[in-house]
Amino acid sequence: MTRRGRPRSTGPQAKVAQLPWRQVTNPHGTLPILDPEGVERIHEASLRILEELGIELWSAEARKLFTDAGAIVEGETVRVGRDIIEAALASTPSSFTLTSRNPDKELTMGGNHLAFGLVAGPPSVHDEVRGRRPSNMDDYENFIRLAHYFNAIHIIGNQVASPLELPANSRHLDAYRANLTLSDLSFHCLSIGRGRALDGIEMMAISRGISIEEMAESPGVTTIINVNSPRRFDEEMALGLMTMAEHGQAVSVTPFTLMGAMTPVTLGAALTQQNAEALFGIALTQLTRPGAPVMYGSFTSNVDMKSGSPAFGTPEHAKANVAAGQLARRYDLPYRASNSSASNVVDAQAAYETQMSLWGCVLGGTNLIYHAAGWMEGGLQASYEKLVLDVEMLQHMMEFLTPIDLSDDALAFDAMSRVPTGGHFFGDEHTLARYTDAFYAPMISDWQNHGAWTDSGALTATQRATKVWQDALEDYVEPALDSARADQLDDYVARRKEQIGDGDP
Amino acid sequence: MTRRGRPRSTGPQAKVAQLPWRQVTNPHGTLPILDPEGVERIHEASLRILEELGIELWSAEARKLFTDAGAIVEGETVRVGRDIIEAALASTPSSFTLTSRNPDKELTMGGNHLAFGLVAGPPSVHDEVRGRRPSNMDDYENFIRLAHYFNAIHIIGNQVASPLELPANSRHLDAYRANLTLSDLSFHCLSIGRGRALDGIEMMAISRGISIEEMAESPGVTTIINVNSPRRFDEEMALGLMTMAEHGQAVSVTPFTLMGAMTPVTLGAALTQQNAEALFGIALTQLTRPGAPVMYGSFTSNVDMKSGSPAFGTPEHAKANVAAGQLARRYDLPYRASNSSASNVVDAQAAYETQMSLWGCVLGGTNLIYHAAGWMEGGLQASYEKLVLDVEMLQHMMEFLTPIDLSDDALAFDAMSRVPTGGHFFGDEHTLARYTDAFYAPMISDWQNHGAWTDSGALTATQRATKVWQDALEDYVEPALDSARADQLDDYVARRKEQIGDGDP
Repeated sequence: MTRRGRPRSTGPQAKVAQLPWRQVTNPHGTLPILDPEGVERIHEASLRILEELGIELWSAEARKLFTDAGAIVEGETVRVGRDIIEAALASTPSSFTLTSRNPDKELTMGGNHLAFGLVAGPPSVHDEVRGRRPSNMDDYENFIRLAHYFNAIHIIGNQVASPLELPANSRHLDAYRANLTLSDLSFHCLSIGRGRALDGIEMMAISRGISIEEMAESPGVTTIINVNSPRRFDEEMALGLMTMAEHGQAVSVTPFTLMGAMTPVTLGAALTQQNAEALFGIALTQLTRPGAPVMYGSFTSNVDMKSGSPAFGTPEHAKANVAAGQLARRYDLPYRASNSSASNVVDAQAAYETQMSLWGCVLGGTNLIYHAAGWMEGGLQASYEKLVLDVEMLQHMMEFLTPIDLSDDALAFDAMSRVPTGGHFFGDEHTLARYTDAFYAPMISDWQNHGAWTDSGALTATQRATKVWQDALEDYVEPALDSARADQLDDYVARRKEQIGDGDP
Repeated sequence: MTRRGRPRSTGPQAKVAQLPWRQVTNPHGTLPILDPEGVERIHEASLRILEELGIELWSAEARKLFTDAGAIVEGETVRVGRDIIEAALASTPSSFTLTSRNPDKELTMGGNHLAFGLVAGPPSVHDEVRGRRPSNMDDYENFIRLAHYFNAIHIIGNQVASPLELPANSRHLDAYRANLTLSDLSFHCLSIGRGRALDGIEMMAISRGISIEEMAESPGVTTIINVNSPRRFDEEMALGLMTMAEHGQAVSVTPFTLMGAMTPVTLGAALTQQNAEALFGIALTQLTRPGAPVMYGSFTSNVDMKSGSPAFGTPEHAKANVAAGQLARRYDLPYRASNSSASNVVDAQAAYETQMSLWGCVLGGTNLIYHAAGWMEGGLQASYEKLVLDVEMLQHMMEFLTPIDLSDDALAFDAMSRVPTGGHFFGDEHTLARYTDAFYAPMISDWQNHGAWTDSGALTATQRATKVWQDALEDYVEPALDSARADQLDDYVARRKEQIGDGDP
């Protein structure tokens, strides 16, 4: 925990040119890959799953909420009528905000807003200098610094890379502290049971200088509930979900549904099962606390049917990202999907799979694009170079999502009348007044001719990315945090570690 | 010219698994990046350019057509009223077909159809085995073989790579003969003046066993007219355009408008100027022969404002691809745009720039995606590995552009009721009946885990692509061509070469 309180470096001195912080909106609209009848067919088929097959729910506390609402509970199986689902959907907010300790970075989840999340969860990290290795706290902290440094990353996911050398029952505390001191972003809590979720809520509240009761009115953290598809919520995820909802914090209910493995092999069935499971979890948030912020999550992709290996950024994955967005909008819910690749190396495959997922997310109207920066190997590797390349691709998308200026000034009739036929506009005053920021200036793309590129070392995009993350880490300055709050965070972590001891958080 | 007459190898013996030949349609729709008022603003501003500034037209023959239509011609400048443009647009077909010597490969240009074209024009070629070098006829022929082999490539562009060792005034004849004997695809004629265009028309007619009069009713070839932006058509391109139109063959009028160089630096102005220039060329096709097939072409991208280097696959390029499609549809014209990258190496940059252009094309409703396979270095390099990777990306897009099956069978309620909660679907009968072709099977993507990928050589996507083009060339079989027609083609080439001598074609 170093250099607390220094102002963040920005502006022309920065080593890495990048777009300024902004929340992204999509003015261009979405792609209707399903017709309205198709959306209703999936809706009806998923209600049939909930009514006839039901969901296995391992938490007695959660089952009681469903029993009280009139669901048919037999053993651990909960069958839910459409009335319960409809009642739950009546109280879900269509959008909400996430506020971190820096109110300038408030994120809106809903409408045509997009937020890009840091990769979450890999047990391995990779960079071109040190190779592939198990992740540890040093890497964890570096990724948080990079997420803070790069303006295109808006939110920190669930443990960007696991600090595997730390005790499993308390490492979430170290991770949350790093999130809150090395960045000023909102983050995801680890919702395996109540304790880890509550720690995230408490620590975010401390960093904001507010109580958790106050934060219930102004959500600051979020989580993902993945579901053990097909049709099972275990106790830990049910309790994590309820803890978040009780405190008014945001939950993305995201069945992780690999077609052919956790769902039938057909995309229609996968979307239907995903929809049933998502609606069940969404209902649980509202039974816990009506009005609790909740997102419709989709993570449907396919597997290699020869090996069973998961695949991402496939055409099926892209279609699922688009179609699930239509379902989310059917329910007027904010929508979460993912940007991902199965590639083992940061190469052309990594880039085209990422683009396929990313365009699927954008065209599906995704509000939270999870794993947007740094995800490799189907989620088993967090990559420094991939993070940089993803930021480049996210910035491309941010620029794509700006409207085209059609003012008289932009249409430039006068400039056209000044430049002769067959001439050029390089020296025209209209150009000179605008050329420095007329176009998106890339961070990684190299547009030199082949000779100049060869002379400058013939580096690939991935090789060029190494210098960018190195520069970013060098240029990074820890965001100022009130020292009293910083001490409170340290005290909280120390106290909780003692409480937890060898036990369960 | 080898092995004429052997049937083409297909089916399970093929060395490279790929999608079958099909023309692609987009059932998902396009993205309205401009609102209707924006489209009209660009339309009106471009009419003003045509009315007030005019276009420089170096062909007296072409100027006479405009004079006769009532345009104001002063010197070489032609100012065109909206009445002339409107009259021309009244006779353009909203779609047309392109028929090669294989009627099964007829392409529709218009509506929601898409066709993917082979890269056109580079003076250099590259592969990972032999490196970068000036292109020659061997490479030319290999690229035609690959275009024929890969079903995702629908049409051959204007000289995939120039056979630089052959005389410049007759190499088009060798290129056309290779197109017609090594593939059965339609192709682009080189429209620098009348001779080269007419040779392409004649030779396609020979290969189809019809007269050029018959082919005027059933177009078989196409061309690109690029315009010397800003606002100049030289004599050669005007004559090429008129020759194609006179014979009822298809022209894409495609201003090559790099913002900041050939147009003002603003995207709104570039789209406006492009629109004016395209409408002018389109009008010329209709003044030449009302009803002649013509496409609205767009090739607007930006330059690096520091070096002047062209850039492709940028956010601006993607936006231009989408917006120009709205203009094309405003005029009910088939639409041509491009898939391109400025990268010097087949890496992540090459892939993400390609994806940006390609998604721009698809979301813009492009009917002919030119340079769809093999384009590198902003058009200066045709790459064997990039061609393979592009085919992979095109196949991804083809699969994305298929509707989602929502039949009862696909929704698979029975399968879901058979598999227990928390179980898996690998062994279910619904999966077993479908798993072999449930998902797109990639040609390049490697989904192995990191260990297996390392054990199999740790190859990047680009390295894996080498084996694919090598296998494809080995597996390739020349498509049968009636021997009388083949002889006629040889005779035509010999006769024309003699006629041309050291002169102009």
